[in-house]
Amino acid sequence: MATAARTESPLYLQIAESMTQQVARGALRPGDRVPSLRRLSRQRRVSMSTALQAYLWLESRGYLEARPQSGFYVRTPFSALIPEPQFEAPKTQPKAVTANAIMAELMESANNPANIPLGAGCASPELYPNRRLNLILRRIVRREPEHSARYDFPPGLEALRRQIARRSPDMGCNFSPRDIAVTCGALEALNLSLRAVAKPGDVIAMEGPTYFGILESAASLGMRVIEIPTNPQCGMDLNQLEAAIRKHRVKACVVMTNSHNPLGYVLPDQYKKALVDLTARWNVPLIEDDVYGDLAHQDLRPRTAKAFDRNGLVILYSSFSKILSPGYRIGWVVAGRFREEVERLKLLTSVASPSLQQRVIAEFLETGGYDRYLKRLRTRLVGQVESVRHAMAKYFPQGTRISRPAGGYMLWIEFPPQINALKLYRAALAENISILPGTIFSATGQYKNHIRINCGHVWSEIYDRALLTLARLCEKAQASRLV
Amino acid sequence: MATAARTESPLYLQIAESMTQQVARGALRPGDRVPSLRRLSRQRRVSMSTALQAYLWLESRGYLEARPQSGFYVRTPFSALIPEPQFEAPKTQPKAVTANAIMAELMESANNPANIPLGAGCASPELYPNRRLNLILRRIVRREPEHSARYDFPPGLEALRRQIARRSPDMGCNFSPRDIAVTCGALEALNLSLRAVAKPGDVIAMEGPTYFGILESAASLGMRVIEIPTNPQCGMDLNQLEAAIRKHRVKACVVMTNSHNPLGYVLPDQYKKALVDLTARWNVPLIEDDVYGDLAHQDLRPRTAKAFDRNGLVILYSSFSKILSPGYRIGWVVAGRFREEVERLKLLTSVASPSLQQRVIAEFLETGGYDRYLKRLRTRLVGQVESVRHAMAKYFPQGTRISRPAGGYMLWIEFPPQINALKLYRAALAENISILPGTIFSATGQYKNHIRINCGHVWSEIYDRALLTLARLCEKAQASRLV
Repeated sequence: MATAARTESPLYLQIAESMTQQVARGALRPGDRVPSLRRLSRQRRVSMSTALQAYLWLESRGYLEARPQSGFYVRTPFSALIPEPQFEAPKTQPKAVTANAIMAELMESANNPANIPLGAGCASPELYPNRRLNLILRRIVRREPEHSARYDFPPGLEALRRQIARRSPDMGCNFSPRDIAVTCGALEALNLSLRAVAKPGDVIAMEGPTYFGILESAASLGMRVIEIPTNPQCGMDLNQLEAAIRKHRVKACVVMTNSHNPLGYVLPDQYKKALVDLTARWNVPLIEDDVYGDLAHQDLRPRTAKAFDRNGLVILYSSFSKILSPGYRIGWVVAGRFREEVERLKLLTSVASPSLQQRVIAEFLETGGYDRYLKRLRTRLVGQVESVRHAMAKYFPQGTRISRPAGGYMLWIEFPPQINALKLYRAALAENISILPGTIFSATGQYKNHIRINCGHVWSEIYDRALLTLARLCEKAQASRLV
Repeated sequence: MATAARTESPLYLQIAESMTQQVARGALRPGDRVPSLRRLSRQRRVSMSTALQAYLWLESRGYLEARPQSGFYVRTPFSALIPEPQFEAPKTQPKAVTANAIMAELMESANNPANIPLGAGCASPELYPNRRLNLILRRIVRREPEHSARYDFPPGLEALRRQIARRSPDMGCNFSPRDIAVTCGALEALNLSLRAVAKPGDVIAMEGPTYFGILESAASLGMRVIEIPTNPQCGMDLNQLEAAIRKHRVKACVVMTNSHNPLGYVLPDQYKKALVDLTARWNVPLIEDDVYGDLAHQDLRPRTAKAFDRNGLVILYSSFSKILSPGYRIGWVVAGRFREEVERLKLLTSVASPSLQQRVIAEFLETGGYDRYLKRLRTRLVGQVESVRHAMAKYFPQGTRISRPAGGYMLWIEFPPQINALKLYRAALAENISILPGTIFSATGQYKNHIRINCGHVWSEIYDRALLTLARLCEKAQASRLV
């Protein structure tokens, strides 16, 4: 608890959030009776009034109902009554993604501190273990003053690679340090991976929708993208994927199997295995993005598709940007049979990754506390996602559909078709609220009435108000069809 | 002086090295009488014996001769008697550079601490201002504990860009902070620049020879390279460059105008201007690498070609890797009319550059001392280059030609044609000496009897012995033609 002391939310909120998690996981189901106030205050070692505050918060959110003379009962929360976005099959034609005109605008608005940051995939700075990382950092600087006076040439710092390898069984893998190359964040890992397996003009299969950074990176390398219909239950449609491989000579397939961005699903193991088997049968490299894998909303970290790789054809990459520190710029990649090529390209692209940060993360992973920290972070993020869903359920017009993420902290929102998300995005920006329009998650211009909402920030009045404003803009749009 | 106290070379050597610099710059010329020992000891506030030690060192290197009853006089140093490499015109046909097989090997040997590092372009860790940087770093961590909890999205930290802009008049430029984008080192800047102006298959004009990182980066992007004959007096042959532009529709031209790697020259201003004028006339973007610009062996920092840019067609990039810290991974680029595209590509390639290092460098540049530090570093490096040249002059077989760098710390060596540098490279590696074979500096397989020697490391017995070993390997090769 010490490391996050400055930023801890109030006790009652911690209790309430942990109970929403129990509900989300099914440990508490609608109709269940929750502990009495007396019991709760003893269990959690808090005062009766704190216990009451927690229950009142949960009641106001629609998680609990008070039954006279009987106590508090779990009810179906408001937000669970909101339907999820509909599955929409993308057009499966390879597409040269054109440089997205609004990317520069997005960057600009992400850089502007005046905007309420519901757009870019960032979390509140105070959620990261800054104090702990700084302690380690100072220790290293004292112990090893020449920490940054050399290049850590590819594959990068051995101590860090060893720690990543040590944790790989959590992903269902068993890496050796030599399998791993350190990169400047996940997106560099993706770029290196794409360049190692495909050339400009080649066709890359991706999920529809998928993270715009993946789409745009492939596009910027001159690759064409084919979107495979993807749904939150079983991921990519494998029949369609196979048809695309057959027809378009797909050179690689990029997927986010865990805590998909923006859909939020965690792909069940059997689908991961089927995906690996299919791509292996066609000898198509599978590039797996696991950036939000550690942030799946479940106790046991989900396995990766890489766990089912028998041929070295799966390239797995991740980073510490969403877990420890976005500004550290440390990611990693296990490139299987493409290892040498990825390392060569890393040398030619950025020579090495930052030395000091590699050392700090290695020591953070080694000295323990990572799992405890991760659990706490996950709990916080789940609570934030629920708060946003709840507010949206309250404020947004009939017909709004909101995803129920099983991982990560993004929400994928579908509006009635008459709402144009790009116009909504601009109207919101005029009110200093930054969101992301759905179209940027597609190579084919789909998701015109979708947006992505980032729930990485610690919930507060500000976000509640911003969502209310957004809901009003939606209503106006629906009414006038002019916004 | 304080910041480098731990790593300062002995006083007599500092004096001697500053005098070799005066010789190199022509402030002292052969035949000039140097101050008497008494005068020197008073000037420099050192003991008579230190002054004597300095003169004896200079005498042993052939810089001074003692004339009885008269004092010490500057003589033509041994190493100045060595001829420079001959100008060799490369074949000017566009070439798709093939992935260089020995790149992986080079990386491996650079990572091996057992090897004497005359290969990769690195300097001794103790030459960098580590103590000073660490002080600033600790201050920032204390003052701003959340230093790395956000992305510094492109163009990067404003405070750093402001400091770079402030120093731009030294390069003959006048940038605003908005002109500059921060990158993960210089090579990322090059990659972004190339991608912003050219596509796979396009022809890029480069100097022959040129830094292999530039060659290989272009190759890894699928671009073809045409080498333009380049000599240390006037740089690229502009007639040949114009012919190549006419014939091959060159899409960009990459040059190192200051402290060329590996040739070591500083291009005079009139040739810089002529180069800019020519490429502008043909509307060809000129990408200028200024990584070693601050390490030119002259007091006044040389201007860049960018200084003569009237059309935003010159892209200038540099980094702090050779000056402050290789492990920081901070470089920058001024991309003129390609600014937006470079920033977009930066976002898609690595999102952001390390936050903490941007802050540390900004403060280092702001709080002063950079120029003083730079001057000291330059003096040390010039001394090291001279030490290597001197040892080579003593040991190496007749017919060896050695460059006289006007900047940076690389030597370009030409052996008699019967010596195969690639074989020499392998033989040296077997003796744990790492050097770079000349062929990797060419797209056309030229420079088979050339090597590059890195003089970045503080001179010691170890290097003297390594050069002696290298000389013996050369002699053996020359004798047997078998090595």
